[in-house]
Amino acid sequence: MSARPDLSTLSAALAPGMVVTDPDILSAYRYDRANDPDAGTPLALVRPLTTEDVQTAVRWCAEHRVPIITRGAGTSLSGGSTAVDGAVTISTEKMRNLTIDTGTRTAVSQPGMLNAEVKAAAAEHGLWYPPDPSSFEICSIGGNVATNAGGLCCVKYGVTTDYVLGLQVVLADGRAVRLGGKQLKDSAGLPLTKLFVGSEGLLGIVTEVTLRLIPQQASACTVVGSFPSVRAASEAVLAVTSQIRPAMLEFMDSASINAVEDMLKMGLDREAGAMLVAQSDAPGPAGAAEVELIEAAFSSCGAAEVFSTSDAAESEAFTHARRAAIPAVERMGSLLLEDVGVPLPALPDLIDGVEAIAADNRVVIAVIAHAGDGNTHPLIVHDPNDADETARANAAFGQIMALAISLGGTITGEHGVGRLKKGYLRDQVGDDVMELTALLKSALDPDGLLNPGVLL
Amino acid sequence: MSARPDLSTLSAALAPGMVVTDPDILSAYRYDRANDPDAGTPLALVRPLTTEDVQTAVRWCAEHRVPIITRGAGTSLSGGSTAVDGAVTISTEKMRNLTIDTGTRTAVSQPGMLNAEVKAAAAEHGLWYPPDPSSFEICSIGGNVATNAGGLCCVKYGVTTDYVLGLQVVLADGRAVRLGGKQLKDSAGLPLTKLFVGSEGLLGIVTEVTLRLIPQQASACTVVGSFPSVRAASEAVLAVTSQIRPAMLEFMDSASINAVEDMLKMGLDREAGAMLVAQSDAPGPAGAAEVELIEAAFSSCGAAEVFSTSDAAESEAFTHARRAAIPAVERMGSLLLEDVGVPLPALPDLIDGVEAIAADNRVVIAVIAHAGDGNTHPLIVHDPNDADETARANAAFGQIMALAISLGGTITGEHGVGRLKKGYLRDQVGDDVMELTALLKSALDPDGLLNPGVLL
Repeated sequence: MSARPDLSTLSAALAPGMVVTDPDILSAYRYDRANDPDAGTPLALVRPLTTEDVQTAVRWCAEHRVPIITRGAGTSLSGGSTAVDGAVTISTEKMRNLTIDTGTRTAVSQPGMLNAEVKAAAAEHGLWYPPDPSSFEICSIGGNVATNAGGLCCVKYGVTTDYVLGLQVVLADGRAVRLGGKQLKDSAGLPLTKLFVGSEGLLGIVTEVTLRLIPQQASACTVVGSFPSVRAASEAVLAVTSQIRPAMLEFMDSASINAVEDMLKMGLDREAGAMLVAQSDAPGPAGAAEVELIEAAFSSCGAAEVFSTSDAAESEAFTHARRAAIPAVERMGSLLLEDVGVPLPALPDLIDGVEAIAADNRVVIAVIAHAGDGNTHPLIVHDPNDADETARANAAFGQIMALAISLGGTITGEHGVGRLKKGYLRDQVGDDVMELTALLKSALDPDGLLNPGVLL
Repeated sequence: MSARPDLSTLSAALAPGMVVTDPDILSAYRYDRANDPDAGTPLALVRPLTTEDVQTAVRWCAEHRVPIITRGAGTSLSGGSTAVDGAVTISTEKMRNLTIDTGTRTAVSQPGMLNAEVKAAAAEHGLWYPPDPSSFEICSIGGNVATNAGGLCCVKYGVTTDYVLGLQVVLADGRAVRLGGKQLKDSAGLPLTKLFVGSEGLLGIVTEVTLRLIPQQASACTVVGSFPSVRAASEAVLAVTSQIRPAMLEFMDSASINAVEDMLKMGLDREAGAMLVAQSDAPGPAGAAEVELIEAAFSSCGAAEVFSTSDAAESEAFTHARRAAIPAVERMGSLLLEDVGVPLPALPDLIDGVEAIAADNRVVIAVIAHAGDGNTHPLIVHDPNDADETARANAAFGQIMALAISLGGTITGEHGVGRLKKGYLRDQVGDDVMELTALLKSALDPDGLLNPGVLL
């Protein structure tokens, strides 16, 4: 990038108002929810409506060697859409077409639709789009694809990539390609659809997603257990998962229970060391057997109290409590969100290790987890105005990722590497995989214009 | 490649007997089950035991610019492992270590294990590896990964890629990388694990696979319907799939019913125009409701006879009949195997169209299908010694793929493009995707040494 390019040619190529240079509006697009203090300011903001609009913007950027930050709803919490000085931010927020095709049981969605909106539209036809990040009411499908987002039901129903049948993607040179489609099985050519899911916007901009829908989930029974210690609860997780595959198995430690209780005042057990929320959606007697098995596993691992319900509103209250943990803990200070995952048997060691890291660094770390698949979210609380505490929080942030790697796990299960975790990726995957990653990146984006600073 | 390289340096670098140059043995490795008449003869055969052996062989080939054909069990039916003159064939048949880890519910398998062996080992621990190609007793896990193989239960349980958590891959320069692992969720870095599943050996050689296992399937009820016409049966497929997601929904036309009956003599209805075999594995009353729904759908679409059973042996007999269709039809002549798939509502038009193409070209085409996911296998029968018939069979082969593409479908749902379908891939995916494919190939294998002639 040389001199500041003439944005009027970009504005002229797109519909009036689609290119924004108003500094007040631009400043609202500096940060995403990771609140990276190093955020820059966009050169311009583009809010396209169509794939062709995205192509026009990308071609202009390619011609002028202007980097592009693609932004969904800004909720990855990894800093994936933090603005960069001199780069154009393309926000997909206005790309909101969605059609449900009941014949093929698919949804075709532009990236700006929220996850909850896709779920609701599918439900109108008795269909279900399972992936359910806790942020499902505010996160976008485009961002879900970029990060290969997970959620609570993924322990049984899989993550975003398992539901993506097709994509339209604008490449770094402005060409648009269609990958996959509405067919349920497709082995024709390299698995390019899968390559783009979870690629964090490094290889192209997703402008349309074809999602597989499945029949609506049967009503679920919920089992809640409160445990004297995190160790007891994490052992109960293994006791359940070694026998059945629950439809949900979520963990909250004492700090997150209390933060949620402060916010929601729903009568959670403030004295508990940890809480588990499990669900079974197996129909009829099979479901009853699963509930019994979960109750027995909780009790045998020392649960002080075990409560079951098949009432939908009661079930939703506990699921909502778990989902509310991030905003609830956020009220205690700024958060560094961990997303570390380990093979299931290592879960107790991971959670114990996080407790020790919190003590060592004298920071509050509230732990919530999609425990049934070994994916945990230690939330490191700190005051960004307290330099010493922030330094200790950052130290803990790195130590937790190192711990997960040492246990054979991953630094991110569902939020992506973004900017915040990229310093730790090499430790997990090694030099050769980093080189392979760079090779693919430069094959598809030789000028490095797409999401510079993310992942690499 | 210049002068014939000195194979003694390759032999010396590997264990005695691991490199084979005996012409009699080499000739047995010329063809795979696609019986491509253009098969060459391997320069040498390498049968490695370990990842390090594969690395040694690949490094030698890279140094001498000798192409490599990777061969699993040779059962893709797309010509993916046909030998090439002057190329080394690396057969993974002796790479047969397998461990089941019940704690993480994973299998770690070398590529030479057969699919059935992985299933059996998992079952010993009450676990299940779902993907079930009809050839599951003779196809290898390495080949399953290379083609992203499917099968009968995939309509409900997904295909190979849905179960691959991690890989070890030897790259074209001989480096070995580990991708993914035993963690169930992993968003760290580009989704490289997924990139290699279904890449048909073009990007690297898979030397170890980590597979997700799930709890053993509940016992299934089977519903068999015989229909007056293929149209009636394919409409019954839609009547079922628009309401539930069966655990299996398989189709056989009259020609395949009769071929199977000739071979197995099990009393199939030779007069039927088509037969469907469906299964429900939903437990208890939910399963009974699904069976009832399938029976009703079959009847309302004109089934002459509908038969249900919850007897495991009876169920297996019908599943076995469906699986036996390819070898049974093979007894009528040489086969060109189609693997076309379409979005489900287009299934009746696809099957009708195949019937018309058979008549137009005066060839027998027996049709079997994983109907529940729109993936069909028209089997084009011909006598390779009859040049005219072979020409008509080849014409039909192309016309069926063109038909599938025109219906919004794919030329291959689960067998891969291999050599036999590569002339048709561009028509499906377009010039830009072909260029993207070539870009990725040359980024990872700049000298084009891995499986030359496959896919590209």
